Amino acid sequence: MALNPDRLLPIEAEARAVARRLFAEVERLPIVSPHGHTEPEWYARNPAFPDPAALFVIPDHYIFRMLYSQGVPLEALGVPRVDGGPVETDGRRIWQLFAAHYRLFRGTPSRLWFEHALETVFGIEERLSPENADRLYDRIAGALGDEAMRPRALYDRFGIEAIATTDGALDDLAHHDAIRASGWHGRVVPTYRPDAVVDPDRPGFAAALDRLFDLTGEAETWEGYLAAHRTRRAYFKARGATATDHGHPTALTADLATPDAAALFDTVRAGTADAAARELFRAQMLTEMARMSRDDGLVMQIHPGSVRNHNALLFQRFGFDKGADIPSRTDYVHALRPLLSVVGNDPSVTVIVFTLDEAAYSRELAPLAGHYPALRLGPPWWFFDSAEGMRRFREATSETAGIYNTVGFNDDTRAFLSIPARHDVARRVDCAWLARLVSDGRLDEDEAHDMATDLAYRLARDAYRL
Amino acid sequence: MALNPDRLLPIEAEARAVARRLFAEVERLPIVSPHGHTEPEWYARNPAFPDPAALFVIPDHYIFRMLYSQGVPLEALGVPRVDGGPVETDGRRIWQLFAAHYRLFRGTPSRLWFEHALETVFGIEERLSPENADRLYDRIAGALGDEAMRPRALYDRFGIEAIATTDGALDDLAHHDAIRASGWHGRVVPTYRPDAVVDPDRPGFAAALDRLFDLTGEAETWEGYLAAHRTRRAYFKARGATATDHGHPTALTADLATPDAAALFDTVRAGTADAAARELFRAQMLTEMARMSRDDGLVMQIHPGSVRNHNALLFQRFGFDKGADIPSRTDYVHALRPLLSVVGNDPSVTVIVFTLDEAAYSRELAPLAGHYPALRLGPPWWFFDSAEGMRRFREATSETAGIYNTVGFNDDTRAFLSIPARHDVARRVDCAWLARLVSDGRLDEDEAHDMATDLAYRLARDAYRL
Amino acid sequence: MALNPDRLLPIEAEARAVARRLFAEVERLPIVSPHGHTEPEWYARNPAFPDPAALFVIPDHYIFRMLYSQGVPLEALGVPRVDGGPVETDGRRIWQLFAAHYRLFRGTPSRLWFEHALETVFGIEERLSPENADRLYDRIAGALGDEAMRPRALYDRFGIEAIATTDGALDDLAHHDAIRASGWHGRVVPTYRPDAVVDPDRPGFAAALDRLFDLTGEAETWEGYLAAHRTRRAYFKARGATATDHGHPTALTADLATPDAAALFDTVRAGTADAAARELFRAQMLTEMARMSRDDGLVMQIHPGSVRNHNALLFQRFGFDKGADIPSRTDYVHALRPLLSVVGNDPSVTVIVFTLDEAAYSRELAPLAGHYPALRLGPPWWFFDSAEGMRRFREATSETAGIYNTVGFNDDTRAFLSIPARHDVARRVDCAWLARLVSDGRLDEDEAHDMATDLAYRLARDAYRL
Repeated sequence: MALNPDRLLPIEAEARAVARRLFAEVERLPIVSPHGHTEPEWYARNPAFPDPAALFVIPDHYIFRMLYSQGVPLEALGVPRVDGGPVETDGRRIWQLFAAHYRLFRGTPSRLWFEHALETVFGIEERLSPENADRLYDRIAGALGDEAMRPRALYDRFGIEAIATTDGALDDLAHHDAIRASGWHGRVVPTYRPDAVVDPDRPGFAAALDRLFDLTGEAETWEGYLAAHRTRRAYFKARGATATDHGHPTALTADLATPDAAALFDTVRAGTADAAARELFRAQMLTEMARMSRDDGLVMQIHPGSVRNHNALLFQRFGFDKGADIPSRTDYVHALRPLLSVVGNDPSVTVIVFTLDEAAYSRELAPLAGHYPALRLGPPWWFFDSAEGMRRFREATSETAGIYNTVGFNDDTRAFLSIPARHDVARRVDCAWLARLVSDGRLDEDEAHDMATDLAYRLARDAYRL
Repeated sequence: MALNPDRLLPIEAEARAVARRLFAEVERLPIVSPHGHTEPEWYARNPAFPDPAALFVIPDHYIFRMLYSQGVPLEALGVPRVDGGPVETDGRRIWQLFAAHYRLFRGTPSRLWFEHALETVFGIEERLSPENADRLYDRIAGALGDEAMRPRALYDRFGIEAIATTDGALDDLAHHDAIRASGWHGRVVPTYRPDAVVDPDRPGFAAALDRLFDLTGEAETWEGYLAAHRTRRAYFKARGATATDHGHPTALTADLATPDAAALFDTVRAGTADAAARELFRAQMLTEMARMSRDDGLVMQIHPGSVRNHNALLFQRFGFDKGADIPSRTDYVHALRPLLSVVGNDPSVTVIVFTLDEAAYSRELAPLAGHYPALRLGPPWWFFDSAEGMRRFREATSETAGIYNTVGFNDDTRAFLSIPARHDVARRVDCAWLARLVSDGRLDEDEAHDMATDLAYRLARDAYRL
Repeated sequence: MALNPDRLLPIEAEARAVARRLFAEVERLPIVSPHGHTEPEWYARNPAFPDPAALFVIPDHYIFRMLYSQGVPLEALGVPRVDGGPVETDGRRIWQLFAAHYRLFRGTPSRLWFEHALETVFGIEERLSPENADRLYDRIAGALGDEAMRPRALYDRFGIEAIATTDGALDDLAHHDAIRASGWHGRVVPTYRPDAVVDPDRPGFAAALDRLFDLTGEAETWEGYLAAHRTRRAYFKARGATATDHGHPTALTADLATPDAAALFDTVRAGTADAAARELFRAQMLTEMARMSRDDGLVMQIHPGSVRNHNALLFQRFGFDKGADIPSRTDYVHALRPLLSVVGNDPSVTVIVFTLDEAAYSRELAPLAGHYPALRLGPPWWFFDSAEGMRRFREATSETAGIYNTVGFNDDTRAFLSIPARHDVARRVDCAWLARLVSDGRLDEDEAHDMATDLAYRLARDAYRL
């Protein structure tokens, strides 16, 4: 049951041989992780990870959503309730439940990531099952106390060269300061994620705005609001940030005249904006952020198209990010036009767009990125951070946009142990794709080697200015 | 020209070998056919099938739509006219016309199904052509008189374990009663399909409602209407039904307050509802049906997204189901939310959703089914009940929803002889998919064997509670 | 670096062998090019092509859009400015810039087309690079003076049997007359492209209408306008045209009562039509054109779904067709219904529909074309005129529509040297697709041979009545 050394490479012998040669060159390249959700505190305080359930099940919405879909209550998996109500606290029982339903993950990326971590981090080459669940639990739990299993040691062991965290606009970045103050050699940079002070539909928006104005001392006007963002962006940049990130329901952008934007801000600030006005405010803010990126050089990331908290009951009981965020149809060609009219022709700006709507790959995103100097395509994301998802992305975008209008891979994860697994999958899938192009005569092999390194390492490093 | 024993299996030798081993285990598993359109009368009266044209051409909209698309009038193919006007009645001439255009079906599933039936039912290993058309016609016509060619014998020969028919809400299910009364061992169960008394846009809707209230003796109010459905569902359930089926233009659902629903019903009953109100009524009824499923345990199937009778001229002349139903863009993420708010978190409910819009597979349907306990994905349907359609379905849904949120295969056919052919295609395509996952290291082969049986047999049996 | 003789054929040995046999039969079939944008003047005057940059870079929006997307200004590539402002005029420097960025085209069809031309036309088997750029420039420039490099010689060398140009409705077709008058054996036919006198949103629309009425002497009424079209179509038909072509933002069609259409025309003519009325006018005109096709036998082509001139800055500076036309979501099932109600059931009419929205292939277009006798599917177009684009098209449409409701390949290019390259790619991809169907038992090889010739030659010739 050990990991197959040729996993995800082409089945055909000739193409597999090419893919092996390509992969051998990129397998051990450093990991650049320019977008993710690990905790800065891990690098600052270097704590031991808790038990196996807390490591692999409780925080991983890929895992618990699948079990939930088959009738396992989230309470039984230890997922904390908003009201503090009782949930399972015995890690071993959670782990056993996971093991009992392990077959659900057959053919999923979660399975690949989990087994990669089991084998490469814990040396476990058995498939999890109800029979061996206790034994594997003990083995992992036993290892977690080792110094070699702490975040800083794993950072080195995983070959990470730089990793970005995602941080709210109001965050003081104290952990980031602590990392730097510690003299540790790791490179952990924050990312400016201002959704909580940009999206009027977010719970707590008004209070977040209060705090933003407090923090920055700016006037509660449109101009003051923009200045406050500039101040916070500078604060982040001073702590190493190279990018911002924006999770919006849609990709809509707008470019209002200043008085109209100012008036819009006032209604939003007053809490009197209707749904259309709130959407327009988010749209305007994407363009404002693009303008600020042009000024301060931060790379801008836009993640649109997810209907958040689709399951009202679950949201009420468990809150955000519990696997009930569902993609929906997303327009880019009309939506991005206002923003692109402002910064799209400027090669010094980088706007990275992600999608959860694969129909947009070949129809809108590749044609846009294959034209506008400022636009780049983010890697396949979330449900598409998978072998088939990545293959379809390359096949649908490369003929129009090439690979040089894409930005390599990012793991986008809060599951620290899955970072090398995810990069491993991405490198294998890209090498498999390249090998097929070589084998059917569309590329020369020397080029494929160069491209494999671009995809595994250089594109991410360069696009994110790391 | 005999059927290739490796048809639809992977071309690569290694993957083909795995696929052969998988397929050998599932090839002869019993057929569970939980959704289809065969005639209950066939099992009740066990008549001989008529001539080859009446068997293969006249009732098969896959066949005659393709010929029509190339200029063959439906009259010449014997398709009956609504006005009783003259159409070809000579089966041999229809068959010759089919043979003359047989090349049109190259690369289509109709070709695979037809040749499977020719070879496995009639022992014919020649490709149909103008030259052999008469000879094959005679051979098939000659065989059709045999006892072994009657429905009950074929039921056994095909290895059918259970088969569902689709029956209008007003149907007395007399044939189903007759089947049971006959003591025959076959399991034929009805399915509750209430579209004619749910969809105000159906011709004859008002008369159908009259009949529903007549049949059940309920008051002509919203409450009475719901009670009438409950009565009819119980009637079906008592005759073996395990499921309902709902063919709607869209997947829209609604959950109105009772007074609003009652008022809506009144306008619909009065015939004064406008288009939006009629759509809202259909939407509300999906949620009502889901509630009833929660109460009575019938599995609910939703088939949205087809623009029925797109060709007005053809509809006027030939009526329903003549190959002019065209899929259109279908939203699920917003549309299903009201229904899912009511029953989505209940693992005891099963709602199976189908689609004709492949863009929804990875974007909406797999994420929804990979989260909501009540939701399952139906197999690729209609135009997608095909080798490529099935492959794309597995590749697009499995990484997010796994296979355990899908429900195996159903043949959805009124062409009795194509049932084993369709299951054969599905089993081959699934084994080919699994073999590729084994060959590139994503699955262990022992798991693939287990999954092959799940996909071929267990998932359908269990999801439909058969 | 010579072209791989097996390029684009399947990697698996068995399927590759089948594909080689298929391709050997179609590789040298004559080229029928029923839709394209070469200049009729080339065939009339038979001039030498200018320097390598003017041949390969300046007029090719696939090439310069990719370089622009990576920050190369269009001025530096010699793309002419609308205002006549300064741009690079030194072909060698443009060529060097192209060479310096050549890696951008890895994995794109532009690369395949360019290298096919280099090797088959100029005998160059080296990959372009900054190092050999000057040498290759000189070699190509030197060859361009040869008589064998002029359009008429290349027409013969490429094996072209017939080629269509695309011509505005007001064009006098003088070059076409000159070609005929010259006695040359080549077959170059015009195509009636009336967008400039049909689309009120086109710059210069009013003046174009003036000219149309001038040319034809018709009254400035709806009836006169339609009569003017009939006159111009007859003018084109008399000069060999067999088709019309319509590039519309959407596929919307309409079938208004005559008085409503006449009133609509009046507002359009007066310049007072709002956006909805202008869209309705385009919609009505598609149906009128279909009616005229029924009368005069010209094949009708509809190319919808591109948002033209997305980049306002670029449009202002460089005008039309500069790589900033971006596809968007396109509905066909509702949009085409009015037109299909008029001509859809008439097998004597041929309407060819193209798409830039792949989601429509299997969902709408294949089901429509697999039903309506008048409807055919155009080949994958523009961004989808590529190996992966063609493969996806066949896989998504053939099971429902077969190949006989498609129209073979057309190259749609203004890059004369890429014509054989594009047909070569199409023939290879189709043979690869057929070989896979043979190898996995879905087709017999004798049929595949027949289909390969259909796809490479007969379907285009017959559909376009050439």
